[in-house]
Amino acid sequence: MIRRMNARAAGFDRQLDELLDWSGVADDRVETIVRDILADVRKRGDAAVVEHTRRLDRLEVDSAGALELSAERLDTALAAIPAEVREALELAAERLRAYAQRQKGESWSYTEANGNVLGQQVTPLDRVGLYVPGGKAAYPSSVLMNAIPAKVAGVAQVVMVVPTPDGVVNDTVLAAARIAGVDRVFTVGGAQAVGALAYGTETIPAVDKIVGPGNIFVAAAKREVFGRVGIDMIAGPSEILIVCDGHTDPDWIAMDLFSQAEHDEQAQSILLAHDPDFLDTVTASIERLLPQQPRAEIIAKALESRGALIEVADIDHAIELVNRIAPEHLELSFEGAEDRLGEIRNAGAIFVGRYTAEALGDYCAGPNHVLPTSGTARFSSPLGVYDFQKRSSIIHCSADGAAELGVTAACLARAEGLEAHAQSADYRRESEG
Amino acid sequence: MIRRMNARAAGFDRQLDELLDWSGVADDRVETIVRDILADVRKRGDAAVVEHTRRLDRLEVDSAGALELSAERLDTALAAIPAEVREALELAAERLRAYAQRQKGESWSYTEANGNVLGQQVTPLDRVGLYVPGGKAAYPSSVLMNAIPAKVAGVAQVVMVVPTPDGVVNDTVLAAARIAGVDRVFTVGGAQAVGALAYGTETIPAVDKIVGPGNIFVAAAKREVFGRVGIDMIAGPSEILIVCDGHTDPDWIAMDLFSQAEHDEQAQSILLAHDPDFLDTVTASIERLLPQQPRAEIIAKALESRGALIEVADIDHAIELVNRIAPEHLELSFEGAEDRLGEIRNAGAIFVGRYTAEALGDYCAGPNHVLPTSGTARFSSPLGVYDFQKRSSIIHCSADGAAELGVTAACLARAEGLEAHAQSADYRRESEG
Repeated sequence: MIRRMNARAAGFDRQLDELLDWSGVADDRVETIVRDILADVRKRGDAAVVEHTRRLDRLEVDSAGALELSAERLDTALAAIPAEVREALELAAERLRAYAQRQKGESWSYTEANGNVLGQQVTPLDRVGLYVPGGKAAYPSSVLMNAIPAKVAGVAQVVMVVPTPDGVVNDTVLAAARIAGVDRVFTVGGAQAVGALAYGTETIPAVDKIVGPGNIFVAAAKREVFGRVGIDMIAGPSEILIVCDGHTDPDWIAMDLFSQAEHDEQAQSILLAHDPDFLDTVTASIERLLPQQPRAEIIAKALESRGALIEVADIDHAIELVNRIAPEHLELSFEGAEDRLGEIRNAGAIFVGRYTAEALGDYCAGPNHVLPTSGTARFSSPLGVYDFQKRSSIIHCSADGAAELGVTAACLARAEGLEAHAQSADYRRESEG
Repeated sequence: MIRRMNARAAGFDRQLDELLDWSGVADDRVETIVRDILADVRKRGDAAVVEHTRRLDRLEVDSAGALELSAERLDTALAAIPAEVREALELAAERLRAYAQRQKGESWSYTEANGNVLGQQVTPLDRVGLYVPGGKAAYPSSVLMNAIPAKVAGVAQVVMVVPTPDGVVNDTVLAAARIAGVDRVFTVGGAQAVGALAYGTETIPAVDKIVGPGNIFVAAAKREVFGRVGIDMIAGPSEILIVCDGHTDPDWIAMDLFSQAEHDEQAQSILLAHDPDFLDTVTASIERLLPQQPRAEIIAKALESRGALIEVADIDHAIELVNRIAPEHLELSFEGAEDRLGEIRNAGAIFVGRYTAEALGDYCAGPNHVLPTSGTARFSSPLGVYDFQKRSSIIHCSADGAAELGVTAACLARAEGLEAHAQSADYRRESEG
């Protein structure tokens, strides 16, 4: 069911590379379809959006304006969902906001003795597009996770797009949009939605950045419009890496592995432990608990194709592997885990101690659940307020300061053969003479 | 020589769009060449690097090891350059470090009443690759601008690659590497250098992120390896936008426009002013000063093809256009410019007041000269220490905290149909009972 590996065995390095290997299939057919749709939306605006929506989502509307949902429609959704779900969404939103507040960057500046002012001005993006998938992968938690950092950053307008194939609307998703403070919602999806947000149409406003998950058409479209607008990362399958000392309830560990594996068949669940007997008991828990799971088939496929229980020498050895794997989710389920945090260099989110199930972080602990996958935690970060802010450098020279810096600038400009640079600095110096 | 436009004239919006339009030519031929080289370096490592370097740079070496420059070689370069250039580089480096220090993100955490700890751990990237172009575009200032933020972030190893076609080495570039604290230098360039940094070879170590400017082959290679490693932005041509009240010396303004235009024929220099007579005097300055410029031909071509002097209604109108254009470099050359900074939302770097020539920021003011181009300042920032740090979310729940959060998490997980998520949270709650 789930493979066993030994990290001290010969050939382990290569085996691990194979286990981790994942490359999104670059499909020329998808790229061609997406480029055509984007070009059409760019050229024909609303008319193209309406046509592609009719064709792909079987949604009949007279005009692009009819694709917009009113604020009242979101209020209706909020009133329609079960009270406990509404309260859970509101509590989660509140906790996400509290955490996000601490990520907010502030402008700063300092003044030098000669009167020069140097600084950095931090401002929110003007307008952000949020893609929300329709159908089975419609997750209200993702709406909160993507929209709240943008609103905390101060983004004036968050524009959500969500496909409603055959007109089927998900009230929980709309309720989450209402709670998160989304400003406008259009029921359009796919590459046509990405195109509308990137180029703007008569009805749908152009945005500065597009975030949120989507299928391969959406991912390809985001990649294509990148540069004209900002995009968040293109996510690979979800992953969890658990390090355990063998003293956590094996059922808890099994269920944590399941909670990742149930996302989809490519999801990756890996456990590292030094005690082979513990790995046996976790295997037994997996076998016992799996049949009751509603998503047992997906879980089984994910564990079989991409899961692993790996025997390691000790916690030091496990941490070495953690930094090499750079997992999206890392659970440190061992005594004194908090004292080893400083040794973890590469991980999207770290769940510390036996009580911190990854699922808490997926919904309501506070930190974002949009995290770097496929080893990209080596160089990238969870989605955060910083993704919705940008910085402008500020340089304000006094006459004296300009004269002083001008000597250095002119010397280096001439060393690089850029005479106009040098003269532009010299002019200000000479005015001082 | 340089076009005149009126921002209040009919059709201006479309004219401005045309003026700003720049799209890097996506060349299938370049992509194919680059993909082949990358695949070859990935497969054959050192042998491929040596062969492509021999073929493309006409540099004969026995082994990849011979491509590495020793620390002594950098010391020799530092001793060989003129003393005033060395001092200027050292002063610039010191100022860049002082500014970069203020950008450094720090880890933080907070504890909730129930004992939950939430936080964010900030760590440097392990290893960074710095691409430095060879030949005529070899800019020592770029070495400082790219390497110093990485070292301030705490990156343990900065690996520089620089092509030396026909064995020609630029001592000023090596001296800058020495001053900036670059750890290793390899004389290899092009797609083969990017491939070596992305995949690693027997001799050249794999890095986590690749930064630095390069020609279209380098840019295409960076785009191709993105995802496996991080990359900085793919820069378009350099731009300056000057807003002037008509009371700055027109020769200063002309020279500032030149200093951008001399970079290359695609560079963009634009001036906004309300007084048509002032635009006339700037035109006269341009005509008088241009012939003496060593790079007059490049400047003339850039001003002719992409430059503009634009008449606007007033400063308010100018600021509106600034935010629409989102320039890489913005000069605010008017009385009281510092009081209008809060209205500037989109700009890479802002040069405030008549004395702040853009050239000061290019070399030594402190802020980075690697800035977002082609309107991407709407959603991206100057290169900074933050580009060499990453964040990991920290969630550490107490038993009580896990039980409390578990209620909300399980409710939302079930609303999304993810039962294993719910049970993984429930298990910890039940242990509390």
